[in-house]
Amino acid sequence: MPTLVSPFLDDLSAAVGRVATDEATCAAYSRDNAHVVDPQVPHAVVFAESVEDVQATLRIANMHRVPVIARGAGTGVSGAAHAVKGCIVLSLERMNRILAIRVEDEVAVVEPGVVNADLNAAVEPYGLMYAPDPASFRQATIGGNVATNAGGLRCAKYGVTRDSVLALEVVLADGRLIRVGRDTFKGVAGYDLTGLFVGSEGTLGIVVSATVRLRYLSPELRSVAAVFPDIATAAAGVMAIARARVQPAIMELLDSGTMEVIDAIHGSNLRARGGALLLVRLDGHGARIEEALVRQALAGLGAQMGPEDDGEAELLIEMRRSSRGDGQDDAYRVGEDVAVPRSRMVPYMHTLERIAERQRVRLRIVAHAGDGNLHPTFWLDPREGEAGLGRLDAALDESVRAALDAGGTITGEHGVGQYKLRWLGWEQQPEVRELQHQIKAVFDPNGILNPEKAI
Amino acid sequence: MPTLVSPFLDDLSAAVGRVATDEATCAAYSRDNAHVVDPQVPHAVVFAESVEDVQATLRIANMHRVPVIARGAGTGVSGAAHAVKGCIVLSLERMNRILAIRVEDEVAVVEPGVVNADLNAAVEPYGLMYAPDPASFRQATIGGNVATNAGGLRCAKYGVTRDSVLALEVVLADGRLIRVGRDTFKGVAGYDLTGLFVGSEGTLGIVVSATVRLRYLSPELRSVAAVFPDIATAAAGVMAIARARVQPAIMELLDSGTMEVIDAIHGSNLRARGGALLLVRLDGHGARIEEALVRQALAGLGAQMGPEDDGEAELLIEMRRSSRGDGQDDAYRVGEDVAVPRSRMVPYMHTLERIAERQRVRLRIVAHAGDGNLHPTFWLDPREGEAGLGRLDAALDESVRAALDAGGTITGEHGVGQYKLRWLGWEQQPEVRELQHQIKAVFDPNGILNPEKAI
Ligand SMILES: Cc1cc2nc3c(=O)[nH]c(=O)nc-3n(C[C@H](O)[C@H](O)[C@H](O)COP(=O)(O)OP(=O)(O)OC[C@H]3O[C@@H](n4cnc5c(N)ncnc54)[C@H](O)[C@@H]3O)c2cc1C
Ligand SMILES: Cc1cc2nc3c(=O)[nH]c(=O)nc-3n(C[C@H](O)[C@H](O)[C@H](O)COP(=O)(O)OP(=O)(O)OC[C@H]3O[C@@H](n4cnc5c(N)ncnc54)[C@H](O)[C@@H]3O)c2cc1C
Repeated sequence: MPTLVSPFLDDLSAAVGRVATDEATCAAYSRDNAHVVDPQVPHAVVFAESVEDVQATLRIANMHRVPVIARGAGTGVSGAAHAVKGCIVLSLERMNRILAIRVEDEVAVVEPGVVNADLNAAVEPYGLMYAPDPASFRQATIGGNVATNAGGLRCAKYGVTRDSVLALEVVLADGRLIRVGRDTFKGVAGYDLTGLFVGSEGTLGIVVSATVRLRYLSPELRSVAAVFPDIATAAAGVMAIARARVQPAIMELLDSGTMEVIDAIHGSNLRARGGALLLVRLDGHGARIEEALVRQALAGLGAQMGPEDDGEAELLIEMRRSSRGDGQDDAYRVGEDVAVPRSRMVPYMHTLERIAERQRVRLRIVAHAGDGNLHPTFWLDPREGEAGLGRLDAALDESVRAALDAGGTITGEHGVGQYKLRWLGWEQQPEVRELQHQIKAVFDPNGILNPEKAI
Repeated sequence: MPTLVSPFLDDLSAAVGRVATDEATCAAYSRDNAHVVDPQVPHAVVFAESVEDVQATLRIANMHRVPVIARGAGTGVSGAAHAVKGCIVLSLERMNRILAIRVEDEVAVVEPGVVNADLNAAVEPYGLMYAPDPASFRQATIGGNVATNAGGLRCAKYGVTRDSVLALEVVLADGRLIRVGRDTFKGVAGYDLTGLFVGSEGTLGIVVSATVRLRYLSPELRSVAAVFPDIATAAAGVMAIARARVQPAIMELLDSGTMEVIDAIHGSNLRARGGALLLVRLDGHGARIEEALVRQALAGLGAQMGPEDDGEAELLIEMRRSSRGDGQDDAYRVGEDVAVPRSRMVPYMHTLERIAERQRVRLRIVAHAGDGNLHPTFWLDPREGEAGLGRLDAALDESVRAALDAGGTITGEHGVGQYKLRWLGWEQQPEVRELQHQIKAVFDPNGILNPEKAI
């Protein structure tokens, strides 16, 4: 470790109790779940236990111009929490108290390190839920969800993290604490700074508390698992459900490759039954009526469905819900996260198949079909070695370009982080990127917060 | 008109076809529906017919440092569209084309001057709706809705304007055209500039097109009108519906004063039947089931309800939906727009009554009860003359202070505009206000866009 950081580390350790500088901790906190392009190790990991810890850390880092990478659970898949040269990592995982659950107001106040699943478990006895449920919900923190504007399965009906965040307390780069938003469902006083912080990937400030809106846990859940011969017919099923004017709580589309993965892990026989799987969950008081409408719409397309309420559909949704299906990205396997207008899903999936063929890489696809958000995974046999990596990269580039050509976006829910910066210029005009850098400069004039990420 | 503006007007008229400078037009476009504190008349009204018109107007105004007030239909009730000294008004009302309706994508693209009701009429044949429905929906424009982040009745279930806006085209203060957001339901590339423009009241840029998400028109609507002895019991009804885990599409609460207004206008006999009215609309496939649950919950509190499906409830909702109940604000009658956490609605309404008594002003209340958003109207008999105005102002100030004390906000949906600036400092820290001014400076370095408003 270069000695020039020592005065900084001395200041930091004097001000904040829990600072780790040992190699093992620094290595463990050097990256998230995304492929690492530029491996770096932080000088230290600060384990904040209070708002004051966060303030002191930023004040000192700002004085010494040391980059600070905020970190929740490190489940991110875009490299947003990867270490950068000369940085420290600020872990919020110990700030994990639920500060308030206001049942009648349908609101909770949490520290940033609260795990998504823990918040849901805490409000469940009141018949409430925190709707955004990234598949990583058993590990990911609310702070990380806020900073990435995480989506999930239920957001087909309930919206993304942004739609559930009412107010935030944020520590600015210079250590000042501000509060943005309000405790009410509606409010339009001034600019939407809450929305600006949501999804800003730790580049504008550190979230130290969040006031979130809760929703009703449904008194009734009905799920349908429909197997189709191919993905195009399954996607037609998505449109048929829309035409039946049913808004499912969850609507996930899995291709044959993903069905094989599930079969391999769980010993099921999905792949033998067809080439695509559509998982639909209906909730609310009308769930039964909606189930009947969905079954009718899908039967018309030749879907195979089990008997009502046989439990399989719910089981498959839980399987899908608690895994991204693919584990950690590495050089040989990269998951993508584009979104396209819903009507373009089928042509886009065909384009993906053609790209994979042309580049001789493997492909499987999971989609939050209700939102047109697709997670293709491209991969190679690692035994191909470095020679294959060029083709993998080319396939990724082509798939992202094709999503933009279809009127889509480079990232539906995972964020730009470090990994997707190379595509951001394809989506956004120079003027728009410049405006974001100017906003960043307003909040963080010295550029210490997660530099070279997100924008 | 001071001659010093002439070179500016010459440039402007040369670049943009439709520029009115006659007294009648300038007066007609000098204000919105809010009480006018500082009467001003614009030098000119530009009627933009194209994006290029807007770009040319801003380019020239920016060069000459002339303030520009964007204007949709002028239905705003916070003075956000009031003229300021030396300004021009930029009317978007002629840019009123619906550019696209993409049925399968559930998306529409509109120019800013499209009237909310016209968009809804256009998508209705496809079984779709544009959810945000301010009571002004028959006049207000989508551009104005976006710039104020308008709420409405249906936002209890479907969210406010922000939740329905996917992408915007915006002309910046210097005339450059940018596009923010994306055409897909989800997307997290970069900062949420779309959210920043929504609700910014024409201070950051001029919206020249909006891509909005559409929702399903419900196949079934069921409505309940419940008369209660008093407002506290009616508000308890709101909580009882929540405990039944029913999320109404609309839930409006009207006090006895408002019932009297409706009786006077429509010849009904509401006031004779009780002291508070709760209007609930259920939609979706489960509407009938939900209606039964709502009736059960409210019957337990002694509500009087007509027979199912007797049409009265729907009629009353339409009456409520197409009027703010109070017409234009003036010196003697000012409508407020606070929001409080839902559990605080009853104590807050009692506080309002005490304030009105103490200040000897009249009071009536309408609330978007599902969101805790209250519209108290304070008024005086104009025959009291100026002597009473101090008491009216004191009552307003006290009511806003009390909403903040209850954990609320100074404005739930109408915006800060000009009229509520005096209260903004009560809600927001100096640091937060300063950040907003710095953001404003990024977008509009010369401060020409709707100066001294919103922030
Ligand atoms: C198996 C698996 C499934 C997944 N499924 C989904 C899914 O369905 N939907 C989805 O959207 N994502 C999904 N993800 C991605 C990831 O889980 C989300 O992005 C999640 O929100 C990250 O939370 P975290 O606590 O792990 O944050 P981290 O990965 O630690 O950090 C993410 C970003 O947030 C910043 N950050 C963290 N905490 C704070 C804070 N308090 N203040 C400011 N910035 C902060 C970090 O600096 C970084 O930029 C999945 C990941 C995995 C591994
Ligand atoms: C009877 C009545 C009922 C109402 N009910 C509701 C309600 O239920 N909910 C609610 O939220 N509001 C309500 N309002 C307030 C008002 O209708 C809304 O604020 C509406 O969104 C204003 O739209 P407008 O087109 O009239 O905008 P205007 O009043 O013309 O302008 C409003 C603001 O938007 C800016 N602006 C307008 N167009 C653009 C553009 N293209 N680009 C940038 N800035 C622009 C203006 O500069 C101004 O700051 C009501 C008003 C009345 C009179």
